[in-house]
Amino acid sequence: MPVGGTANHATGQARSAAEHDASAPAEAIGVVAPGPARGASNDVRSGAGSRPPEGLGKGRGGGSSFQEMWRELAPIGRDRETRGYRRHAWTGADADCRDWFRAQAESRGLTYELDRNGNQWAWTGDPTAGDAVVTGSHLDSVPDGGAFDGPLGVVSSFAALDELRRRGTELTRPLAITNFGDEEGARFGLACVGSRLAAGQLTAEAAHRLRDQDGISLAQAMERAGYDPDAIGPDPERLARIGAFVELHVEQGRALDLSGDAVGIASAIWPHGRWRFDFAGEANHAGTTRLIDRRDPMLTYAETVLAARREAELAGAVATFGKISCEPNGVNAIPSMVRGWLDSRAADQSTLDTVVAAIERAAKERAERDGVDLSVVRESFTPVVEFEHALRDEIAKILGGHTPVLGTGAGHDAGILSGSIPTAMLFVRNPTGVSHSPAEFAGEDDCVAGVLALADVLEGLACR
Amino acid sequence: MPVGGTANHATGQARSAAEHDASAPAEAIGVVAPGPARGASNDVRSGAGSRPPEGLGKGRGGGSSFQEMWRELAPIGRDRETRGYRRHAWTGADADCRDWFRAQAESRGLTYELDRNGNQWAWTGDPTAGDAVVTGSHLDSVPDGGAFDGPLGVVSSFAALDELRRRGTELTRPLAITNFGDEEGARFGLACVGSRLAAGQLTAEAAHRLRDQDGISLAQAMERAGYDPDAIGPDPERLARIGAFVELHVEQGRALDLSGDAVGIASAIWPHGRWRFDFAGEANHAGTTRLIDRRDPMLTYAETVLAARREAELAGAVATFGKISCEPNGVNAIPSMVRGWLDSRAADQSTLDTVVAAIERAAKERAERDGVDLSVVRESFTPVVEFEHALRDEIAKILGGHTPVLGTGAGHDAGILSGSIPTAMLFVRNPTGVSHSPAEFAGEDDCVAGVLALADVLEGLACR
Repeated sequence: MPVGGTANHATGQARSAAEHDASAPAEAIGVVAPGPARGASNDVRSGAGSRPPEGLGKGRGGGSSFQEMWRELAPIGRDRETRGYRRHAWTGADADCRDWFRAQAESRGLTYELDRNGNQWAWTGDPTAGDAVVTGSHLDSVPDGGAFDGPLGVVSSFAALDELRRRGTELTRPLAITNFGDEEGARFGLACVGSRLAAGQLTAEAAHRLRDQDGISLAQAMERAGYDPDAIGPDPERLARIGAFVELHVEQGRALDLSGDAVGIASAIWPHGRWRFDFAGEANHAGTTRLIDRRDPMLTYAETVLAARREAELAGAVATFGKISCEPNGVNAIPSMVRGWLDSRAADQSTLDTVVAAIERAAKERAERDGVDLSVVRESFTPVVEFEHALRDEIAKILGGHTPVLGTGAGHDAGILSGSIPTAMLFVRNPTGVSHSPAEFAGEDDCVAGVLALADVLEGLACR
Repeated sequence: MPVGGTANHATGQARSAAEHDASAPAEAIGVVAPGPARGASNDVRSGAGSRPPEGLGKGRGGGSSFQEMWRELAPIGRDRETRGYRRHAWTGADADCRDWFRAQAESRGLTYELDRNGNQWAWTGDPTAGDAVVTGSHLDSVPDGGAFDGPLGVVSSFAALDELRRRGTELTRPLAITNFGDEEGARFGLACVGSRLAAGQLTAEAAHRLRDQDGISLAQAMERAGYDPDAIGPDPERLARIGAFVELHVEQGRALDLSGDAVGIASAIWPHGRWRFDFAGEANHAGTTRLIDRRDPMLTYAETVLAARREAELAGAVATFGKISCEPNGVNAIPSMVRGWLDSRAADQSTLDTVVAAIERAAKERAERDGVDLSVVRESFTPVVEFEHALRDEIAKILGGHTPVLGTGAGHDAGILSGSIPTAMLFVRNPTGVSHSPAEFAGEDDCVAGVLALADVLEGLACR
């Protein structure tokens, strides 16, 4: 089938312009990559400042160009001081991102759908026909996150569709672009809530028990944002319509930078988990309590932080204490309680088990010495995800044999969905490896390469 | 002069009963010590549960008995869950404490005064006569503090006055009981604000710059509580009226427990300070950033915490990291910034200097290794305070030669005032040494001994 109707096209384009910048003239569609986030160091831009290849970016796809889309998204949920993004689930910034997604869909004449779990869909072709090719990512962010983690995948999806329309590609399968809700889990502490619910990996009951740090439940937050929390739950019929899901994402490490490639294919997501270490000591006066009389849990915490680094280093894994709470958190009070959250990941399950066990052992030994009570709770765990080999091989063939295949420590909606449907991921080079930070960055040429690679993959999959 | 007029007495007593428990019959005045704070371990009470000596606690002092006073104060500002106190400056709980103080003063027919800095005064005799003997402490608390730190001194002051009245003591000097405002500095980060302002150790301008963690300034907080922030500043005339200030306080260490004494006399307050260590790293994804690419400030913080303990141990000092902030404080994000606050104290200045310099050195070395930027800011510093030898000797003579004399690591209003007027402190045994915690405790007998010792001291000083 043709990629979108031409009549819808024109209407959609006009609507988009009216909604987003009433005064702007209709611009030629262009795949033009974003500039760096403010705060990114300049040195990473060298060699990434050239324009997209001649011919690319001139088409009749409908909707905004890559650059326009990027510009529209840029101010949403951005903190003035940190320059990082705070697009947390079901907040005002999240709503603005969702409005933007819907406007992009409508400006391209795509069929817009909101599913029962708050995930957004934009279809070309018949959504119910089955064997659909789906691409997309998420628009929410971690606290003070970067501009690329999530949005690059969504923007590239729209841009890739525009590129297919420019090429005049005739699709034989339905194609959809998605925005999965609450991928980062920044607000309710659990990642990939939208895809987990859809895939039945999170029950509606468990989701209803999630609360943010102000005690607001996920259900209350959804309701306040105008969604129906009673509707959430597994969505097998929707997933059954999908033949392949491909998520493009900025790489969150430096593997592509080290190999010298703009785009890579994911092999697997490392097994990973979160553990909460509760160190319970005894509050006391910092000035008058003899060292020998103390039960100071900050000491135990500190030893555990260093042990985590040491054990991860030994095993070739990663282990991080990035979140802490301390009570009563007074300068002149020995803490009564320190809570530290461990995030650890490794290439395989047994390595991860070994690392976490060693950290726990070190924590226990020090806790005994400090007179501190330790308890460790595993808050979440995701086993290794191997992306489907057949789909991965097909994509490798489409992109040519030279495209590197790499594992990653980051979780993604694609990882969640891989239990239900064939999924694959494309990574775009991140020259610093920095992610989850305002300094997160991808070069202009690499973003263009990502869009073209995604367009090739979608064309290859949806025209076969 | 006689201790309070009998006419005022009766009036005062009636008013107190009406204000606090209209249905209660006039009770015999009794110095009855408090029970332990809930949550205190029972083992510390053994041997401390006997009743006060016969004869004590039967008098005609006016106002509530020790036990009544303790019972009235007990619920104010207490957290239901932690059972600790949150009586922070210029909050509702603070206002309730202040109302209680005023009611106690009026029920005893004392002349009530509020000074320009929000400190409360209750006088017997002519406040302007000069050479007054003043006793008292504070009623505010650290976050989740205990019941004794501060209130024991204020309650004991009223009880000691009642005891003098019971004895029929004729005072030859004016006598006042005080409640100094914002001693703990829990809200605005600076301790002893009320006494510092009075003594000219904190300017009104600097005080106006203080803000709590919600950004509310001290001036706004005072205004909302019904006080005039424009009035604050040095109060030399008031201090010039005072011949001696004696503060009774629960000991915050175990020196008296180890020596087997109920009451001790302070020799000096150790020099102490607060330093803020800012560890600036780089936020990044906890799952995907190779260890070698990280600039993780939590590691530097952890090493510094352990170095502080080590260096303090070596030098016979104390050093504590009890307060921390972490950004962005997400489980899957390497922190961009960790701030840790060091509280350190030692018996003398050069030891303290040595300890803090060694901690800074260890932090710097590790920071270099971690690629972390370190800056250290000294937020406050109080040099050693030697209490006046003449007053201390006089008190030792009054109490008998066996009373131990001990130094302390805790700051007090008495330490601040010692720069302006002769001051002394009495400590009451703390069998566990625990302070700044809901488990803070002093035994019944020891509280009684404290009241009697304070009464003896006031009698000795004010009748000479």
